[in-house]
Amino acid sequence: MRIYGDSVSGNCLKVKWTADLRGLSYQWIETSVLNGETRAPDFLAMNPAGQVPLVRFDDGRCLAQSNAIMLAFAEGSDLIPTDGYSRAKMHEWLFWEQYSHEPYVAVARFQLRYLGKNPAELEPRIVERGKAALKLMDDTLRCRTFLASDVFSLADIALVAYTRVAPEGGFQLDGYPAVKRWIARVEQALGIDPAR
Amino acid sequence: MRIYGDSVSGNCLKVKWTADLRGLSYQWIETSVLNGETRAPDFLAMNPAGQVPLVRFDDGRCLAQSNAIMLAFAEGSDLIPTDGYSRAKMHEWLFWEQYSHEPYVAVARFQLRYLGKNPAELEPRIVERGKAALKLMDDTLRCRTFLASDVFSLADIALVAYTRVAPEGGFQLDGYPAVKRWIARVEQALGIDPAR
Ligand SMILES: N[C@@H](CCC(=O)N[C@@H](CS)C(=O)NCC(=O)O)C(=O)O
Ligand SMILES: N[C@@H](CCC(=O)N[C@@H](CS)C(=O)NCC(=O)O)C(=O)O
Repeated sequence: MRIYGDSVSGNCLKVKWTADLRGLSYQWIETSVLNGETRAPDFLAMNPAGQVPLVRFDDGRCLAQSNAIMLAFAEGSDLIPTDGYSRAKMHEWLFWEQYSHEPYVAVARFQLRYLGKNPAELEPRIVERGKAALKLMDDTLRCRTFLASDVFSLADIALVAYTRVAPEGGFQLDGYPAVKRWIARVEQALGIDPAR
Repeated sequence: MRIYGDSVSGNCLKVKWTADLRGLSYQWIETSVLNGETRAPDFLAMNPAGQVPLVRFDDGRCLAQSNAIMLAFAEGSDLIPTDGYSRAKMHEWLFWEQYSHEPYVAVARFQLRYLGKNPAELEPRIVERGKAALKLMDDTLRCRTFLASDVFSLADIALVAYTRVAPEGGFQLDGYPAVKRWIARVEQALGIDPAR
């Protein structure tokens, strides 16, 4: 199997971390968004949405959307809670991530770090909604070890990807102490270096 | 079980249609977004994200995010494909809907129909991306009966909700003939009136 991904993208790292935790064997095809590699005809033939991450299975069939790929990789493993309500909450966080977190927290980071904007140039709506997302996570994590339940799940992998680099988008994490402690727990579960 | 929803919201109707197809019994609590009912303290105590749809199970536990609720309601039914790849594609469409379709197709409709804007006042980015989403669906549906596979699934329910009312957001569907035929098929599967 091949995973097409850009190593600076949280959406792609989520997929990589899940594959690694599951011990899946794959070839990582580095695919740069900024260099337009996701808009090349060969890539668009595999994913008409023109985005990474993308998985190409050995039979040639493809799968897009980071959280859908994570669900496929994790099927039957303890990354998906067996208890029905915890599993439903995990799904809730996965959709919330794509709707209420990534479009603000990840987009601010992309604009500052990769497009070279100043913090003052960010749309106020992006900053406000990013802060609201971090606050909602902090409130949740004050009384829970992980997002979906007290057990580590795909919800934590999906949310940590852009939350741990939120300061690169101008969101300081000092105001969200429960989020900071949770990031450390998730980095440990994933075996990734806090410094990176 | 109680479903809190606003009857003019596609995100809420998805959940209602799925509950009805599954024959679940529930009490529908009409909750108006425009009147601020999703921002009332009692509602925020159930869903700190302040959004409908929201489900409150009989034991008091709550679940948000339309597509997570649909997945919970449909578990074990033929609305979720048993074939692993078709199921993964269904998940792909559910995340794509929230990331690449709803923020454009539904938002344009909300701004025109409920906030009273003129088409000329819509952000060009919203119009362009909405059209790109409809084109991607049309290209897919030229060679497939339903979105995830040749079998009706939650992907069709999630996507039809705002696609069938896309003209209210200024997106004329005549340029997307495969989408128009698919809407008719999905409305029939759901038993809903095309005129509404
Ligand atoms: N909802 C998608 C988002 C994917 C996405 O936004 N990918 C970006 C990189 S993080 C991309 O490929 N952008 C290229 C483009 O849109 O042209 C997912 O979760 O996989
Ligand atoms: N991603 C959420 C979106 C829910 C959503 O945007 N709900 C709107 C109505 S369609 C709402 O409650 N808005 C009230 C608000 O944001 O204040 C879902 O799929 O359930």
